[in-house]
Amino acid sequence: MLIWLYITFIMGLVSVGLAGYLYRYIKRQDAGNERMREIANAIKEGAKAYLRRQNITLAIFAIIMAVIIGTLYTIYHHGDTFFGASMMLAYILGSICTTVAAYIGMIAAVEANVRTANAAREGLRKAFPIAFYGGAVMGLSIIGLSLLGVSALFCLYRFVLGFGDEVASTIVLGFSFGASALALFAKAGGGIYTKTADISADLVGKVELGIPEDDPRNPAVIADNVGDNVGDVAGMGADLTDSYIASLVAAMLLGAECGESILVMLPLIAAAMGLFASLLGVAITKISIKGNPGAALNRGSFGTWIIFAILLLIVSFFSGLEGNRWLGIYLPTVAGLAAGVVIGLTTDYFTSIDRMPAKKVAEASTTGAAINILTGFSYGIISIVPPVIGICAATLAAWYLSTLFGVNPFYGIAIAAVGMLATVGMTISADAYGPISDNAKGIAEQSWLGEDVIEVADRLDAAGNTTKAITKGFAIGAAALTVLALFAAYVHLVNIEILDLMKPEVVVGIFIGGVMPPLLSALLILSVGRNAERMINEIRRQFREIPGLMEGRAKPDYAKCVDIATKGAIRELIPICSLAIIAPVLTLRILGREALAGFLAGSIVTGIIFALFMANSGGLWDNAKKYIESGVYGGKGSEAHKAAVTGDTVGDPFKDTAGPSLNTMITVMSLVAEVFAPIVIGLI
Amino acid sequence: MLIWLYITFIMGLVSVGLAGYLYRYIKRQDAGNERMREIANAIKEGAKAYLRRQNITLAIFAIIMAVIIGTLYTIYHHGDTFFGASMMLAYILGSICTTVAAYIGMIAAVEANVRTANAAREGLRKAFPIAFYGGAVMGLSIIGLSLLGVSALFCLYRFVLGFGDEVASTIVLGFSFGASALALFAKAGGGIYTKTADISADLVGKVELGIPEDDPRNPAVIADNVGDNVGDVAGMGADLTDSYIASLVAAMLLGAECGESILVMLPLIAAAMGLFASLLGVAITKISIKGNPGAALNRGSFGTWIIFAILLLIVSFFSGLEGNRWLGIYLPTVAGLAAGVVIGLTTDYFTSIDRMPAKKVAEASTTGAAINILTGFSYGIISIVPPVIGICAATLAAWYLSTLFGVNPFYGIAIAAVGMLATVGMTISADAYGPISDNAKGIAEQSWLGEDVIEVADRLDAAGNTTKAITKGFAIGAAALTVLALFAAYVHLVNIEILDLMKPEVVVGIFIGGVMPPLLSALLILSVGRNAERMINEIRRQFREIPGLMEGRAKPDYAKCVDIATKGAIRELIPICSLAIIAPVLTLRILGREALAGFLAGSIVTGIIFALFMANSGGLWDNAKKYIESGVYGGKGSEAHKAAVTGDTVGDPFKDTAGPSLNTMITVMSLVAEVFAPIVIGLI
Repeated sequence: MLIWLYITFIMGLVSVGLAGYLYRYIKRQDAGNERMREIANAIKEGAKAYLRRQNITLAIFAIIMAVIIGTLYTIYHHGDTFFGASMMLAYILGSICTTVAAYIGMIAAVEANVRTANAAREGLRKAFPIAFYGGAVMGLSIIGLSLLGVSALFCLYRFVLGFGDEVASTIVLGFSFGASALALFAKAGGGIYTKTADISADLVGKVELGIPEDDPRNPAVIADNVGDNVGDVAGMGADLTDSYIASLVAAMLLGAECGESILVMLPLIAAAMGLFASLLGVAITKISIKGNPGAALNRGSFGTWIIFAILLLIVSFFSGLEGNRWLGIYLPTVAGLAAGVVIGLTTDYFTSIDRMPAKKVAEASTTGAAINILTGFSYGIISIVPPVIGICAATLAAWYLSTLFGVNPFYGIAIAAVGMLATVGMTISADAYGPISDNAKGIAEQSWLGEDVIEVADRLDAAGNTTKAITKGFAIGAAALTVLALFAAYVHLVNIEILDLMKPEVVVGIFIGGVMPPLLSALLILSVGRNAERMINEIRRQFREIPGLMEGRAKPDYAKCVDIATKGAIRELIPICSLAIIAPVLTLRILGREALAGFLAGSIVTGIIFALFMANSGGLWDNAKKYIESGVYGGKGSEAHKAAVTGDTVGDPFKDTAGPSLNTMITVMSLVAEVFAPIVIGLI
Repeated sequence: MLIWLYITFIMGLVSVGLAGYLYRYIKRQDAGNERMREIANAIKEGAKAYLRRQNITLAIFAIIMAVIIGTLYTIYHHGDTFFGASMMLAYILGSICTTVAAYIGMIAAVEANVRTANAAREGLRKAFPIAFYGGAVMGLSIIGLSLLGVSALFCLYRFVLGFGDEVASTIVLGFSFGASALALFAKAGGGIYTKTADISADLVGKVELGIPEDDPRNPAVIADNVGDNVGDVAGMGADLTDSYIASLVAAMLLGAECGESILVMLPLIAAAMGLFASLLGVAITKISIKGNPGAALNRGSFGTWIIFAILLLIVSFFSGLEGNRWLGIYLPTVAGLAAGVVIGLTTDYFTSIDRMPAKKVAEASTTGAAINILTGFSYGIISIVPPVIGICAATLAAWYLSTLFGVNPFYGIAIAAVGMLATVGMTISADAYGPISDNAKGIAEQSWLGEDVIEVADRLDAAGNTTKAITKGFAIGAAALTVLALFAAYVHLVNIEILDLMKPEVVVGIFIGGVMPPLLSALLILSVGRNAERMINEIRRQFREIPGLMEGRAKPDYAKCVDIATKGAIRELIPICSLAIIAPVLTLRILGREALAGFLAGSIVTGIIFALFMANSGGLWDNAKKYIESGVYGGKGSEAHKAAVTGDTVGDPFKDTAGPSLNTMITVMSLVAEVFAPIVIGLI
């Protein structure tokens, strides 16, 4: 057994080491001319300023939370401080792990942006590796650290201190809760920040004054660039990582529930194999002589998945499960992967720029903003259908395939989620590459590097759509299976034998839980609106009061805008995210354990529906706008384009603030249930 | 026992008789000058044309459906045609009942519109009774007919043919299914029709050409007026009636399940008392000398509720239930009514023109349409919270109060819903009064009756907001409790002992059911968009091709627009509504009875969430626009107003097409489950 833990450990270390090596590679590249360095520096300073302030606020929150958890667990264990201290430690470690990894990833992205822009002057083949390795620094460091953290804690409590699987898994649960809570804050805060800057810059710059996007005269342009990094890169990394850790914990808890040590270890082993496959995947992601970045990303991603599928086959075969029970592990995972591919590709249809829905939304723009919005809203909702069917199919397949071979079906669902997320190291690398090339384009525009360079950045950004779609399918499917597994773990934990949907508490719980995801989305969107209002006033003030700004003779006060976005985002997110932690505890306290189970079920259903709807309709509006910008229906500047811009602005906080926070939110609520239920029930 | 049925019968007859008397009263009033008669005639013809075409299509659908039900029930009863024929008959009777009542109601409304407009020239005191009695014709005829139908069928099968409670209730279920299916079509079709006309008239008239609302030069103006009648009046009536009948059936089925005849009769008795209270309520709704229509409506409504509460107290006390079990009937109903009041008043806060949310949305309009939409969307979602808490409180209260006094808790929930809907005769009367005065205003404008008359119509329209809010609260709460009761009835019907939420089929069912309400909303909204596109092209064509139309020298071709809206609405609604019938049957067939139970639960949760969100955000956008029109933020014609108009257009299909169809839709899906489950399960 221990040998596997060593391997997991080594994988984590190798991954972090490789991330360090790639970071040094990026730093060695040329950062371009004076103007580019200046812009990059402003972005870096802005991003650091944001993260510094965010981390100070979150550190206070994390410490308060850790003390609460520590105290409650100590009281629960009749004054024995050991468990309280352990949970505190695990919680803080989880928080630190997410924070550090997001910080590293973002710095790497910021460094990679400007160097990608500079390399783009020499063409695709020079620029691609910089953008990709920039993403890989985050992907590998964040997943390496997570795996190290989980396996170290497990090893410490299980093998060094000699506790049972259940205790060790519970400690890892504390780690996961820390990581997820932080991820929720990072995601929500980054989302508010990035859309505050984006909407304000667009509304004043593009709409009111008619200056182009990313124009250096716009006081919000640096804040906007910073936002792309804190929101898209750091936030996205934090999001996938928290699902990753939560899926491991869910499987470990259910494995411990089954009383089989091998089932507790298997998630870690699968994760190690996935990380190994990801390392190989990063290594083979090389652009060919013809210079097609899409082909490179596809080769890397598909390579990773194939290697992982083979490794998992071997590992589960030799896992020591008697008879053909190993098939009860392997087949659910394969079914999950297959469902993920289908989910990804069908979802892609609904948002792609060259497909019917985006074209219909673009066409609707010709009759004005209202019809554009109604059409995008509707197709966004219709786009939920294929992924939900996919999730249902994956759930049923995982359930029955594991049952068939004598494995606990809840465990089957959990391990399928682990399988879908195991290769997330490669996923994040390929995903973070997108915003990096997008930012490179922004820097190229602000440094007047010319159309050729911008076009290279554009081609980089457009690459690998199929891969991205499949990846997204994995993320959606895995998140759903993970929360279902956590839900099952909670129900077992609080000893609910049968969760009868005909009990009024369960029904009421489903209603209350069902309201939570839309409610939190609405609160997040309102925060963006409030924050954007403050920023819009500041941008208008600068254009009014700084003489010569509009003519390009004076420089705007970028820092002021960065500051407004930062302060506002931090201030807004605390009460909203706290609600996600308080609501489950209150439900448990007032309505009981079965109501909380209903609450989780309700939040999972509407959470997935709203997350998909918001992400997809946002993507649709965005692509409908781009489609019109490609010259259709009058192109840029036409009435149709104005309508499409309104739709895109509505979609911005949908797809970049509320939508992406929901996955993390339902994970956090499930983990809250898990962490607090024993205490609250024990103390009542 | 039979004496109660006689009373129920007599109440139904008196109600229909009074409706006839009021209709003759309206017809005796003066219909105004030549121009007014002409307009009224055009509206009447348009409305009749729409209903004629709708009814032909729906008759075909109803006959096909009836044959299917008849055949299946015959096969199920091993070739015994009696039950098949009975269910067919009940289904068709239910369909006819809804159709006839909606038709009568609409004709009365159309007749009342023009006479109200004419009477408005002589002031409020003259106009008010015409508008109110116009609504009362529909309220009393539709509820009278429904109660007659239900009690006649029940009496026939229970007492004349001598079947048991269960069989008789099942036959009534067929009646309810017919009524609900028709109501769904009427609601969805009317909703598509009215918003097609509204949006097209606004987009071309107000936005493109800058001519006022309800301007007679606009070719869509008659279609728009027709839409107000078929959508708001007929659709709304059909909607409340279907909830009304469904609540009776749910309670009767659960009563039969309990094996107590008195519990099967009680819903009918309560309904008869409610109708009696409504008749008295209509009688006391008289405008005072000071001429305040709001006070009159409040007196009528509160009077009805108080009379009903007293009657119900007496009836349940003397119901023959042993000991204090009658409290287990009475208290849940009172709790339901209390919850309804709270739901109504809190919901009202979120949409009222003079409250914070509407003002915030108006304020957001100053930064453009996108922020207006995001703000309205968010507050619309936040507005779900109080009613959902109210529904949860009502559910828990009904459950525990009935359990406490030894009544089956599901029956307690069902009878609470019956109580909230029993006075719906008065509710519809007071509600339909709104669109009638609104239409009177439109006719006054088109007939150039002058500002004074329009102001009188405006004051009529604005009256009775508190009453309307409470009424809406009753409707929401009762719909929720009704579907919960139907859900319980289904679970009992198919012999599910415990509905375990940890079974994968149940979870999958919840997911699929949860997707249905948003999906159908999206499909309905897309239909409106498609239909509006056709109509916009026609309006533009007329302005282009009819010389002198813009200058008011030529008359537009109103009939053509009416025709486009009619054809389109009918064509669009069939596939969408069929989905609501097919999806539950398919779920049952493929995934089993427990999956269908999950399906119903999921659809109830997201159905209520989406219905509330869509109705409230639509109301918010509407009122934010009106608030700006009152002169704030630059008033009419300002940039803020334009943004608010965009928001209002987005909200139109939310609040008048998709939102109101959802209640009926989840009722229909529950009834489908009830009607088809025994057959599908029996035949598998």
